[in-house]
Amino acid sequence: MSTTIATSHNFPPAPPRNKRLSIGIIGSGNWGTAIAKICGENARAHGNHFRSKVRMWVFEEEIEYKGEKRKLTEIFNETHENVKYLPGIPCPSNILAIPDVREVTRKSDVLVFVVPHQFVDRVCEQMKGFVRPNAVAISCIKGVAVNKQGVKLYSEYITERLGIYCGVLSGANVANEVAREDFCETTIGYNPDLGTSVSAEMMVALFDRPYFSVAAVKDVAGVALGGALKNIVSMAVGFADGLEWGGNTKSAIMRRGLLEMQKFATMFFDSDPRTMVEQSCGIADLVTSCLGGRNNRCAEAFVKTGKSLQQLEKELLGGQVLQGAATAADVHELLTSRDLVKEFPLFTTVYRIAYEGMKPEGMIQVLQPPVEESENEFTTETNDD
Amino acid sequence: MSTTIATSHNFPPAPPRNKRLSIGIIGSGNWGTAIAKICGENARAHGNHFRSKVRMWVFEEEIEYKGEKRKLTEIFNETHENVKYLPGIPCPSNILAIPDVREVTRKSDVLVFVVPHQFVDRVCEQMKGFVRPNAVAISCIKGVAVNKQGVKLYSEYITERLGIYCGVLSGANVANEVAREDFCETTIGYNPDLGTSVSAEMMVALFDRPYFSVAAVKDVAGVALGGALKNIVSMAVGFADGLEWGGNTKSAIMRRGLLEMQKFATMFFDSDPRTMVEQSCGIADLVTSCLGGRNNRCAEAFVKTGKSLQQLEKELLGGQVLQGAATAADVHELLTSRDLVKEFPLFTTVYRIAYEGMKPEGMIQVLQPPVEESENEFTTETNDD
Repeated sequence: MSTTIATSHNFPPAPPRNKRLSIGIIGSGNWGTAIAKICGENARAHGNHFRSKVRMWVFEEEIEYKGEKRKLTEIFNETHENVKYLPGIPCPSNILAIPDVREVTRKSDVLVFVVPHQFVDRVCEQMKGFVRPNAVAISCIKGVAVNKQGVKLYSEYITERLGIYCGVLSGANVANEVAREDFCETTIGYNPDLGTSVSAEMMVALFDRPYFSVAAVKDVAGVALGGALKNIVSMAVGFADGLEWGGNTKSAIMRRGLLEMQKFATMFFDSDPRTMVEQSCGIADLVTSCLGGRNNRCAEAFVKTGKSLQQLEKELLGGQVLQGAATAADVHELLTSRDLVKEFPLFTTVYRIAYEGMKPEGMIQVLQPPVEESENEFTTETNDD
Repeated sequence: MSTTIATSHNFPPAPPRNKRLSIGIIGSGNWGTAIAKICGENARAHGNHFRSKVRMWVFEEEIEYKGEKRKLTEIFNETHENVKYLPGIPCPSNILAIPDVREVTRKSDVLVFVVPHQFVDRVCEQMKGFVRPNAVAISCIKGVAVNKQGVKLYSEYITERLGIYCGVLSGANVANEVAREDFCETTIGYNPDLGTSVSAEMMVALFDRPYFSVAAVKDVAGVALGGALKNIVSMAVGFADGLEWGGNTKSAIMRRGLLEMQKFATMFFDSDPRTMVEQSCGIADLVTSCLGGRNNRCAEAFVKTGKSLQQLEKELLGGQVLQGAATAADVHELLTSRDLVKEFPLFTTVYRIAYEGMKPEGMIQVLQPPVEESENEFTTETNDD
């Protein structure tokens, strides 16, 4: 754990009372509301550090509630429950749902991004010009943008668009389990050396809860890539499940996959190799996904039913894109353009099985490099001692 | 994978024909016979490197076979099948079962130990005085001997007793899956710097098969400790299974457990921290065990049924000792005597749950260190912005 720079053991000194930080949550879906709940609880618990009121931007919708059409923000501010995206989970009353993203932006020192990645662009466009000069951001958006040109983290994107530092939060965190306060861990990638006004310790204090254990590392890229690349590997394990391969084989796939994740992060970024194999954002997130995440389940069904991925996306994911397959395709495009396909045999195999009709059984040949026999081997039995 | 010193990619140059190595297998149980099968196949495949005949020491028994009492060695040498300990698996005909361990010892350059750990002492006693001067050994014995005095690897024990170098083989290897040729990986800990006459590449050539992928590292202690300590962690995950905790929590336990395994290995030995988190003997063996190994299943039943471990050992393991519990007790004794209990909270918790009546639910407090609140925190709601 030598990469960790802050945990709840390093509780930060409180700033002067007029410098306490205001928190704004950009997003209010299932994961967004769970994150808002955490920040709301900590804003209350650490009144010396944070202002109590936590603003949550909610994309306004009219919904049917107790027999009448009402605005989602109004219902939330009255009931302290996101009845549409996280029903059944009471949130602290210091969270205020606000339909105007500019208002949230204008009043926040820490901006927590939890929107689906396809909305980042549009949201940043609306926020521009309203960001406080010393504000910092943290991205809880899973995934990275990969194409032929290279890999871009959403945190980098937010920095470019808004001109503020942006860290990343990612780990073995299934939103509903976090909302129910089942214990889990997470990792914050946050590099205070890059001139941010908020320390890593403050970031840990904002997110760490008794049921949500946070460790901070400087390696932002490693944290972001863990959450994206693990989906490729959990598809590989799903194929193995579909073939009913044993535990030995599946753990070998996970291990090889984790090392390809590590290699990718260190090849394309200045990532610390320990992040992937030691922190929650790497090994733990991978294990959770392989124990029955959606990529895993779809890949298993792909092998067992012979249906296409598009068909399974419709049937099992309600039409949502299967992240592991999409990421495998993006990564494959990048690797092909850089002539690096051979360096990532497992990633490549997932792409080929998903898109090029390769038989899943072929994964074995990929795991086992061919033995290079020396010339002139005796291969017949001899009776010598 | 930067710790790896040899894989099947580094096929060794063949020695002069009269220097080819003779292989002896010490042990013939379920795992012993699976290992003998592998060595037998490779002795045939690499006739430039190994002598074809592989001698397997079999503790002689008379068994009922096809209606008559016969010797196990005779049946094996006739049928090439270990009908008692690995029935249904044909072995190569170049493996010769021999009831006299001294004969096997006398004729072998490489001695592969695959006996239950409680027999190592007795077997070494019988072998003494018959070992070839340049012989080397490799131990496939799972576990380590831990007590108040410290930790001793069985490989160290073999070196002391027989005066020859001894490496270790360990990985995510369920014997029956290996025997059926389901793909898996393994790790050899073997340090050629310590003046052995046989290279690491030769050791890889002896064990690597298309279905059994071998990587060699110099870190013998890390390899041996992985196979022993993972049993403690898989009990912790079994307790979590019994409590029906979610995937987030279980993967957090595995991650924390893996880091305690790494810490233990680096604290008590000069182990490379990467071995545990990157090689099959660490992370992969742990994952396999947590996906339903015997420690995992017994710990789950312990929580769900409320029965004692002794009772469950009888019911689920046919009276065999539950390795995870025994290792947790041995490790706890050592940690107590060195005042290191606090450094290994998860290991300690498994011990306390198994032996001291601690409630399994208490594992949560262990995973989450208490937040150190700063003095004078406001914890009441304020209306400030």
